[in-house]
Amino acid sequence: MDIADLAALEEIKRLKYRYLRCVDTKDWDDLADALTEDAVADYGTPTYGKPLLLTGREAILEFMRTTLGPEIVTTHFASQPEIDIDGDRATGTWAFQDLVIATEHRVVISGAAFYEDVYRRGEDGRWRIAHTGYQRTYETTHSLDDLPSFRLTANRWAPAPTAAD
Amino acid sequence: MDIADLAALEEIKRLKYRYLRCVDTKDWDDLADALTEDAVADYGTPTYGKPLLLTGREAILEFMRTTLGPEIVTTHFASQPEIDIDGDRATGTWAFQDLVIATEHRVVISGAAFYEDVYRRGEDGRWRIAHTGYQRTYETTHSLDDLPSFRLTANRWAPAPTAAD
Amino acid sequence: MDIADLAALEEIKRLKYRYLRCVDTKDWDDLADALTEDAVADYGTPTYGKPLLLTGREAILEFMRTTLGPEIVTTHFASQPEIDIDGDRATGTWAFQDLVIATEHRVVISGAAFYEDVYRRGEDGRWRIAHTGYQRTYETTHSLDDLPSFRLTANRWAPAPTAAD
Repeated sequence: MDIADLAALEEIKRLKYRYLRCVDTKDWDDLADALTEDAVADYGTPTYGKPLLLTGREAILEFMRTTLGPEIVTTHFASQPEIDIDGDRATGTWAFQDLVIATEHRVVISGAAFYEDVYRRGEDGRWRIAHTGYQRTYETTHSLDDLPSFRLTANRWAPAPTAAD
Repeated sequence: MDIADLAALEEIKRLKYRYLRCVDTKDWDDLADALTEDAVADYGTPTYGKPLLLTGREAILEFMRTTLGPEIVTTHFASQPEIDIDGDRATGTWAFQDLVIATEHRVVISGAAFYEDVYRRGEDGRWRIAHTGYQRTYETTHSLDDLPSFRLTANRWAPAPTAAD
Repeated sequence: MDIADLAALEEIKRLKYRYLRCVDTKDWDDLADALTEDAVADYGTPTYGKPLLLTGREAILEFMRTTLGPEIVTTHFASQPEIDIDGDRATGTWAFQDLVIATEHRVVISGAAFYEDVYRRGEDGRWRIAHTGYQRTYETTHSLDDLPSFRLTANRWAPAPTAAD
């Protein structure tokens, strides 16, 4: 590995971290620039009852905007990058865990998987995600009502309390 | 990025990992040197019913020593560093998950957040944390008694069994 | 840190990520080459009721093959590497969380710990794990039956559904 490889490695890791942060903070505008225009997402969750194959940046963003509103808390937590760089193209595997709390439906979905990504460096010298997808190691669901004492004590998406509360 | 940037990046990541390890192993002496003397911690947890703003290394350590005794198991797990270096100052965002088991109260608190940190490189050439804080994505609590079969099978802070046990 | 140190750091991190991925995907053949022939594993889990000290690559692989069959879902998730390199030997500390779902016994085991590893670079220039082990911060267990609504919705190791399902 030379200095250019090490720098590219850091850039690609940072790209992935930005993508993950934007998903969990619902920052769809900033997320857009992390994806190539023709990006493909192939999320291996059974949550929607059918394969979730999204083709093109706009389709991915549209999916996020419409399914991940303020009633859905998500955390995606990734580590363990194994990245191979070949010129302006790279592939990467990551372990991740995710947790979804559907606050209105009082349901938790959690699981783990390995991402299989492809990255491309554009003419502007910046890396973007060209393909992302994963195969589940496992996924589980349960109702919050199974835990009688459960309370959600902080929620980034909850309306701020008002004087009337 | 040049070699000095890459090296600084590794030093800052390692500093954060040391901070996190010291918190979870309750190694307050080693933690001290990870903080600048004027370090500020602004932890965004609602656990204490009021904002938790700690000013100065001594105030941070005093808080840790008095609230995180052997009856409190903690894990703080961070990944996804997005670090910007500007001379001897740097900023960093990290995703993290934490879990607190209050073994005597039989309560679990868990959550996720994004750290927003500031780092400073001192005259001795070492980076330290000058500011740390976070905004919760979510935080939850429940009683261990909600899970009738729950058992804590290992606990670093439990007294060693004696011949009488 | 010079360029050789930074490259070695990346190689060692990647070695660990490969080890972790191979364990959770049950890829025992690929796991073999991540270990030195005389590798020692000293896993600090109380699950087996006695210390789990495995001496030699073959003993480690034999343990994995016989105890981690398709009825056991595992995820090992590590971050926070603190690695020191000294020539062709290195030591590393990592934070990790693990989750085991014994699908037939309907039991979950989860916990966190800090790995304490030793790595060696062989005559072929490749780093391998010479020693791995950990001390638990905590470990817990509970039955899936404590959560009446719990469902395992995806499982990499479940038999594929057939027309009769």
